Amino acid sequence: MNVKEIKDPHFLKELNLEQLEDLCCDLRKFTINSVAKTGGHLSSNLGIVELTVGMHYVFDAPFDKFIFDVGHQTYIHKILTGRAQYFNTLRQYQGLSGFQKRDESIYDCYEAGHSSTSISAAIGMAIARDLNQQSNEVIAVIGDASIVSGEALEALNHLGSIENKVIVIFNDNAMSISQPVGGFHEFLAKVRISNRYNDLKDDVRPFAKKSRLASMVLIAAKNIKDFFRRSLIDDSIFQNFNLQYYGPVDGNNLNEVIKALNIAKKSNNSIVLHFNTKKGLGYQQAQDDTTGCWHGIGPFDVKTGLTHISQSTKTSWSCIVANHLEKLMEEDRDIVAITPAMIKGSCLDHIFEKFPDRAIDVGIAEQHAATSMSGLAIGGKKPFLSIYSSFMQRAYDQFNHDLARMKIPCLIAIDRAGVVGSDGPTHHGIFDIGFLLPLPDIVLFAPRDSYEAKLLMNAAFKNNDRPYFIRLPRNSVENIPCSTSKTIEIGTWQTINPADQYDLTIVCYGDNVNKVIAHFKSHKYRVRVVNARFLKPMDTTIMAELAKETKPVIVYETDLVCNSLGYNLAAYMMEHAARCVFKIVGIQDSYPPQGTIEEIFKHEGVDLLSLEKEIERVMENEKRKN
Amino acid sequence: MNVKEIKDPHFLKELNLEQLEDLCCDLRKFTINSVAKTGGHLSSNLGIVELTVGMHYVFDAPFDKFIFDVGHQTYIHKILTGRAQYFNTLRQYQGLSGFQKRDESIYDCYEAGHSSTSISAAIGMAIARDLNQQSNEVIAVIGDASIVSGEALEALNHLGSIENKVIVIFNDNAMSISQPVGGFHEFLAKVRISNRYNDLKDDVRPFAKKSRLASMVLIAAKNIKDFFRRSLIDDSIFQNFNLQYYGPVDGNNLNEVIKALNIAKKSNNSIVLHFNTKKGLGYQQAQDDTTGCWHGIGPFDVKTGLTHISQSTKTSWSCIVANHLEKLMEEDRDIVAITPAMIKGSCLDHIFEKFPDRAIDVGIAEQHAATSMSGLAIGGKKPFLSIYSSFMQRAYDQFNHDLARMKIPCLIAIDRAGVVGSDGPTHHGIFDIGFLLPLPDIVLFAPRDSYEAKLLMNAAFKNNDRPYFIRLPRNSVENIPCSTSKTIEIGTWQTINPADQYDLTIVCYGDNVNKVIAHFKSHKYRVRVVNARFLKPMDTTIMAELAKETKPVIVYETDLVCNSLGYNLAAYMMEHAARCVFKIVGIQDSYPPQGTIEEIFKHEGVDLLSLEKEIERVMENEKRKN
Repeated sequence: MNVKEIKDPHFLKELNLEQLEDLCCDLRKFTINSVAKTGGHLSSNLGIVELTVGMHYVFDAPFDKFIFDVGHQTYIHKILTGRAQYFNTLRQYQGLSGFQKRDESIYDCYEAGHSSTSISAAIGMAIARDLNQQSNEVIAVIGDASIVSGEALEALNHLGSIENKVIVIFNDNAMSISQPVGGFHEFLAKVRISNRYNDLKDDVRPFAKKSRLASMVLIAAKNIKDFFRRSLIDDSIFQNFNLQYYGPVDGNNLNEVIKALNIAKKSNNSIVLHFNTKKGLGYQQAQDDTTGCWHGIGPFDVKTGLTHISQSTKTSWSCIVANHLEKLMEEDRDIVAITPAMIKGSCLDHIFEKFPDRAIDVGIAEQHAATSMSGLAIGGKKPFLSIYSSFMQRAYDQFNHDLARMKIPCLIAIDRAGVVGSDGPTHHGIFDIGFLLPLPDIVLFAPRDSYEAKLLMNAAFKNNDRPYFIRLPRNSVENIPCSTSKTIEIGTWQTINPADQYDLTIVCYGDNVNKVIAHFKSHKYRVRVVNARFLKPMDTTIMAELAKETKPVIVYETDLVCNSLGYNLAAYMMEHAARCVFKIVGIQDSYPPQGTIEEIFKHEGVDLLSLEKEIERVMENEKRKN
Repeated sequence: MNVKEIKDPHFLKELNLEQLEDLCCDLRKFTINSVAKTGGHLSSNLGIVELTVGMHYVFDAPFDKFIFDVGHQTYIHKILTGRAQYFNTLRQYQGLSGFQKRDESIYDCYEAGHSSTSISAAIGMAIARDLNQQSNEVIAVIGDASIVSGEALEALNHLGSIENKVIVIFNDNAMSISQPVGGFHEFLAKVRISNRYNDLKDDVRPFAKKSRLASMVLIAAKNIKDFFRRSLIDDSIFQNFNLQYYGPVDGNNLNEVIKALNIAKKSNNSIVLHFNTKKGLGYQQAQDDTTGCWHGIGPFDVKTGLTHISQSTKTSWSCIVANHLEKLMEEDRDIVAITPAMIKGSCLDHIFEKFPDRAIDVGIAEQHAATSMSGLAIGGKKPFLSIYSSFMQRAYDQFNHDLARMKIPCLIAIDRAGVVGSDGPTHHGIFDIGFLLPLPDIVLFAPRDSYEAKLLMNAAFKNNDRPYFIRLPRNSVENIPCSTSKTIEIGTWQTINPADQYDLTIVCYGDNVNKVIAHFKSHKYRVRVVNARFLKPMDTTIMAELAKETKPVIVYETDLVCNSLGYNLAAYMMEHAARCVFKIVGIQDSYPPQGTIEEIFKHEGVDLLSLEKEIERVMENEKRKN
């Protein structure tokens, strides 16, 4: 069928198994062809086709509540709820979100972007339902990588002690974005091999109703089933949390899926349904992928599987930092690299191959990752952590209580700092400056270019005296060579004058420095640029100069303005009786939307054109005064 | 023996079991008598006497590393490592810390204050040890409340997949501060009842060496033991994490403790040793306590168990808020109260008794607590969360990604906001303003008195439109009656003039407002006070007035100054061309020490006397200018 004609999932109820299976084929084809054009999350969506169809067949959304963990695996759900026609706008500015989104559809009762929140949200909804004396089901769908992250385990533990029914669909595809990590996964691997339980699971009940003999057969079969099931249940982590468990079931076998979902529906208690699914099923390249290349993918050619690689001479900030780290690790055997499940995203593949003893993937466990650094450092090592700005929020307390408070020497690369683009509001890394600046005695650095990034990395490991944070944007950048011996004086800014004379000063940091310099090179106003690369500690010499300025000072930030550089500089200037015109251009009180980075900057009024307009206003006012 | 004479734990190795048991008695007596004088953590320390003695007997600290989770149960460890003589200064300004403290002793290799970090830190140390090719043991001691918090579970999962050996001492006293929460605890309760394994555990090895028959007996016994052990192991959550498990063992039986620790010492792999201990053992009142009264206790009379209750007419902010919440819950059946294991601390006992269906204790699970609120609110309820400021740091991402981003209606009482006193640097609630202010569209309120607190609570549930945060200091306050119908206009400040004329303005918030008014009532300078009770949204009308001020404006905060009110006000004033003298008095870039709140304020230069001196300086400068 043409999946674009689907308005809502009600039609599913009328289909027989064969028709449903045909539908699954159509959903797969559409997803592959659509993601090939727009890019997006592919593998996880291909793996969850039968599960999603089964859920909409057995349950009644939006009456029943579906909460997909993270939410990047909801493409099938979106198609079945009438959104196929918008897939050409997927992850684009003002287009379809790549995640569940409450204002997009009544079928999206929840939304996320960060992992491991679904069971907590489901528990909240289930308690509300029971207090309201309603009868809907609440269903959390969570993968094997997300379920071992702290919050999900906290929620499972709580769920085991309350009466409120939640159905947890455990979508086990034996893979996080790349390889799964942890003892629980090793345990799951054993379950997968040893389990023959499903072979016995044919439902004999309809037959059994017919004769007494059959009834006895049923009881015998049930006993055998119970025996096998028990052998699994006894082994299950869910049992330890006092939770009913069923599975594992072949999650790509629609018949099995529907049976299992019906068991959960009939149950009076919370239950964990364990499904084994194949990530990427239906597209060979995605199915064979073991490194996570096909987790999130750009536009590609469906026939060849080749992605459209741009011919840029620039490299991602993540890769530049990873490559320089490799050099440092060659020279300094004390450096240990850590990642929370982001080997590929943080370009650490080569480091993991080259230094297997000194490269640690802890899985989706940001909290554990951060605290383990304190142990490593106390043990004499020099820990390096690469972590996305947005996911860093998960370990705020650990950066504070376990690293900054004990002044633990370490280097943290804040990947995807600033606006990130198509992942949208859940993923923008615009909060880190605000929450890191108050941490006593840390260093927070935003390099102007790759050379400065390398200088700071060298300095961090050489000084080895406290936590160093370095912000890396989502963009690419030119790779400037820099030896491992050169360092940078902590807390120093740079002043870049256009000539001896200037009309105003722009204070900025990160890759905005070079952009601003280039943009205002032959501008009608002569712009002096301050590279405020150390967001902490700030350069009090240059700040003292700025406090004495008579010409306008404009702070330009493409991060959240509240509690960012501008506010810190303003506090200094107010206390030092500054008398110049002072303006801050930055992202105001909002979660920016999805889109290209340029589109988002424009939307938030922080693109270079908006900056230019603000400068025009300021300078016109100045003229009027004089 | 006189435990004050202990210099280090080496003497332990020479003692026999009986002498060690006598020592345990002496340690208990000393601890009870000492805590009776100073106050401190009692129950947990009485429960862990044999375990701590056993650890120092079997292992070699500081070569072997002891990491106590949280660290409030380290009094015995402190006594055994030569610190008994300082116990009269426990938790006092410049005195002995109530937690492990690295700069206090070489035997304190790590430190914490927040729960569930010990296994992460131990893994880091174990990896460092193995890279350094050292041979010390790394031992994490963690309780049954802490082990089910997210970070600890993340660490256990990681530990199960690595080769680096860590010994996890699981100190199971069937109690968190009050009652334990969660499915895992219900499971543990079953283990405790069903297990008879320990009865079989007499070590027959010395005997077995003597004869072939004995050897066969040994093998048979081993098989029986294995059978029993396996029945537990199969049930154990640790096994699911691929970890070796031993126990449960009577953790107050020194002989059993030493045997178990020796097994762990001999093991080549990571192992979880499960000890059942009795909290409060040796002091009847503490042992019988089921509500957590004896967890942290003020000075008390050893004979009667009576604590010294002050005759104050003031009530704690927590209790005032809890009592008002009770009234609101009576009127509005949609309000649901949540706490992460702080029923007693947040004064919620009565609410849990009165509204068992609408009061939820999730255990030490701040992340889960925060996200579950979003589910409750989406389900039509009005969630209220009471959480300590410092522990709130654990759920920063959830407040951001799951509450503020979706603009979830809810009310969060930030308990113990600001400097907290004797718990010290790990517990001060001085970061919340900095990390909450950037969250788009939230309300952050710091009430001047109990009346304002109640107004905001009423407004939050009435408006029911976004997350409201209300800061409650550690102090007590006068209880001013306020009906549940009165509300407050969001974003409004107050100006309190001494007369028509004034010499300067002090901007402050929270309980500092009344303190400042009282202190400067008959001062030589006429002080105008601005009650900046809404830290977000700020009052732009009053700010606009302040920006036009010609007389000095002083911001007074007893929280961390970076990214607090002063910085936000400064940014506004700089952008609005303010020309007045402007100063911020607040806690500079540091983790304040332990002590009374007044001692800490003085130490940080934020007591009223320091404020007065700053005002004196400012006004003298003003005079000189005129």
